[in-house]
Amino acid sequence: MQFAGRLNNVETSAIRELFKLLGKPGIISFAGGFPDSAMFDVEGLKEASAKALAEEPGGALQYGATEGYNPLREQLAAFMGTKGVKGLNPEGLIVTTGSQQALDLLGKTLISPGDKVIVEGPTFLATIQCFRLYGAELISAPIDGNGVKTDELEKLIAEHRPKFVYLIPTFGNPSGGLLNLERRKKVLELAVKYQTLIVEDDPYGDLYFNEAPPPSILALSDSVPGSREWIAHCGSMSKVLSPGLRVGWMIAPAELLAKATMCKQFSDAHTSTFAQATAAQYLKAGRMPATLAHVRKVYAERALAMGEALRQELGDAIEFVQPQGGLFVWARLTGAGGKVKDGNEFARRAIEQGVAFVPGAPFFCANPDPATLRLSFATADVARIEEGVARLGKAL
Amino acid sequence: MQFAGRLNNVETSAIRELFKLLGKPGIISFAGGFPDSAMFDVEGLKEASAKALAEEPGGALQYGATEGYNPLREQLAAFMGTKGVKGLNPEGLIVTTGSQQALDLLGKTLISPGDKVIVEGPTFLATIQCFRLYGAELISAPIDGNGVKTDELEKLIAEHRPKFVYLIPTFGNPSGGLLNLERRKKVLELAVKYQTLIVEDDPYGDLYFNEAPPPSILALSDSVPGSREWIAHCGSMSKVLSPGLRVGWMIAPAELLAKATMCKQFSDAHTSTFAQATAAQYLKAGRMPATLAHVRKVYAERALAMGEALRQELGDAIEFVQPQGGLFVWARLTGAGGKVKDGNEFARRAIEQGVAFVPGAPFFCANPDPATLRLSFATADVARIEEGVARLGKAL
Repeated sequence: MQFAGRLNNVETSAIRELFKLLGKPGIISFAGGFPDSAMFDVEGLKEASAKALAEEPGGALQYGATEGYNPLREQLAAFMGTKGVKGLNPEGLIVTTGSQQALDLLGKTLISPGDKVIVEGPTFLATIQCFRLYGAELISAPIDGNGVKTDELEKLIAEHRPKFVYLIPTFGNPSGGLLNLERRKKVLELAVKYQTLIVEDDPYGDLYFNEAPPPSILALSDSVPGSREWIAHCGSMSKVLSPGLRVGWMIAPAELLAKATMCKQFSDAHTSTFAQATAAQYLKAGRMPATLAHVRKVYAERALAMGEALRQELGDAIEFVQPQGGLFVWARLTGAGGKVKDGNEFARRAIEQGVAFVPGAPFFCANPDPATLRLSFATADVARIEEGVARLGKAL
Repeated sequence: MQFAGRLNNVETSAIRELFKLLGKPGIISFAGGFPDSAMFDVEGLKEASAKALAEEPGGALQYGATEGYNPLREQLAAFMGTKGVKGLNPEGLIVTTGSQQALDLLGKTLISPGDKVIVEGPTFLATIQCFRLYGAELISAPIDGNGVKTDELEKLIAEHRPKFVYLIPTFGNPSGGLLNLERRKKVLELAVKYQTLIVEDDPYGDLYFNEAPPPSILALSDSVPGSREWIAHCGSMSKVLSPGLRVGWMIAPAELLAKATMCKQFSDAHTSTFAQATAAQYLKAGRMPATLAHVRKVYAERALAMGEALRQELGDAIEFVQPQGGLFVWARLTGAGGKVKDGNEFARRAIEQGVAFVPGAPFFCANPDPATLRLSFATADVARIEEGVARLGKAL
């Protein structure tokens, strides 16, 4: 069978191969990219879905508008309002089948083969593959402890004139980093100056541990005239409520939203109305603030425990910025004291010791840093985190 | 904003424009392509979703495998077994976000720009647009009262050497037709002879009114050596249980299934596990046979009522094959007695009389027959059908 040429642009994920090793009994995994199932508000979702089926069985079970189920769009617009996004109408967003589909729709809608797209180095692995399937040539913009380096980003925009720039500015996967306020404004200025679309992927922004992060790039667009027309923002219920619902959303300028909706019509017609009606009832019931408070508290403890254990067990052989939110520690092996400096090699040794994480190299679309690694603190409790990091110490 | 070149291959659906007129008060609609909400087994789905959340909250709410939720794959493999498909393992199918996504994944996996795909004339509108978005050049194969004309199909395959042939052999949208047994076998022989993939889209096969239709092309592949390797089969819960779940599936040769799974990973990661676990519990509870019996009975009555009313009210100004299943009457204006012969003109007059249907021309990828129209008998009860067809008589 002869497949489409676009498949030559992607490879089976290196991470998938690694995941096959995770079945080993007794392994402590820091490798996942998912939230802790124990944190799901099962009772709240049970009530929400029962209510959806009782109050609006037609809406929850019938075909729905491609743009999304209106009661959910209303709830999401209000939810974004609580996060500083002004003047957003329900019509200003579409519901997507997880925010992964928002990325797919952006690719389908915008990328012609050979088009350039700038992403952070490192960035979300499925973004790289998703855009490459549409023929994108990806350009890697370097980051530091304050997120993407906007001076470098400007040079890359000026040189490559990309179709768009894709950023995960808040506790991104894998970097866990936070783009600071000054740079967020700079990104908005670049959008206007170069008339370049900025895609802000924001599945983790609600998962902050202490003080709230700076407003999203979308929320800040009010302060930079003309910038709102160059921002697409992707949100998701997956990290705070449940990935299994597959409910995400995209906010974008009207013309882009209309084209993405047309593409979505032929991708999956619409997102499950059953899941959408459940999410709408959940938000309407007002349970989200308590759920967020709980999730933040638990992840904050785990992040702290992992940071402390890493410093204690691995010392100067590893460096990282202590995460202020999200699910990940992004770390770099320093090689101090002649210790292992290669993420792949370290991952292999770690598996032998009964602990898993993901080496960082695959997260770069170009110029991978082989000394990097991603550790998730989301799914193991504090005791398992301490034990797992102790095993990492042995593996080192 | 500059969009991807592929968007130039599609247009906003003509049907969408028509649907905007359906808001007119008092209108009787035969225009929809959806099942009747009143037929949804709300109680059964309520129980199934509650059970899914009670018994396996992790599985129902967490990220899941891209291939699908295993308990559902097991149920679906067994369900296909009851329909004569032998030797299907759960690993032989993937779950898709409605069968629309199966079409999208086939497009993404197989179609390079300029590739040819043969479809029936007429065929499902969203198929045409979906494949065109991937750059397919569509070839139209003519049908008659026994489905696609296989002698014509063979000529087209030999001439165009298509990437694949897409058929809706059983009560298809819009034709409502049934490919007979002899032609089904001929299609399988053509698949082997020309080493050409046949895509069998089968969302309506369970909706038969009296005797069961011939086995699916997939089920018949046992009888034609070597043909199973050239069949992809798309199924769906949408027409028999609930479209809102967005649960479909695709059965295909292993290599194609693996590539489609990779594409799905970057399309939406996986189909809602919440919807999948609900569907799995529903099938496990054994409610499907009773639901199917009920749905078949109601639609059979409506189909009969519509057929009789059409013959009575429109007489020889219209011709059609009485449907033996599905949701649609596909009809042709004959112009007898100097009556209107154009489907678009008739649709405009019908709206004025308070009744809506869809003109047939947009369902053809080439050489549209302007005299055709599609009438759905699914969502109006018998009295409304009779009143609606009487209005059609006036409009004529």
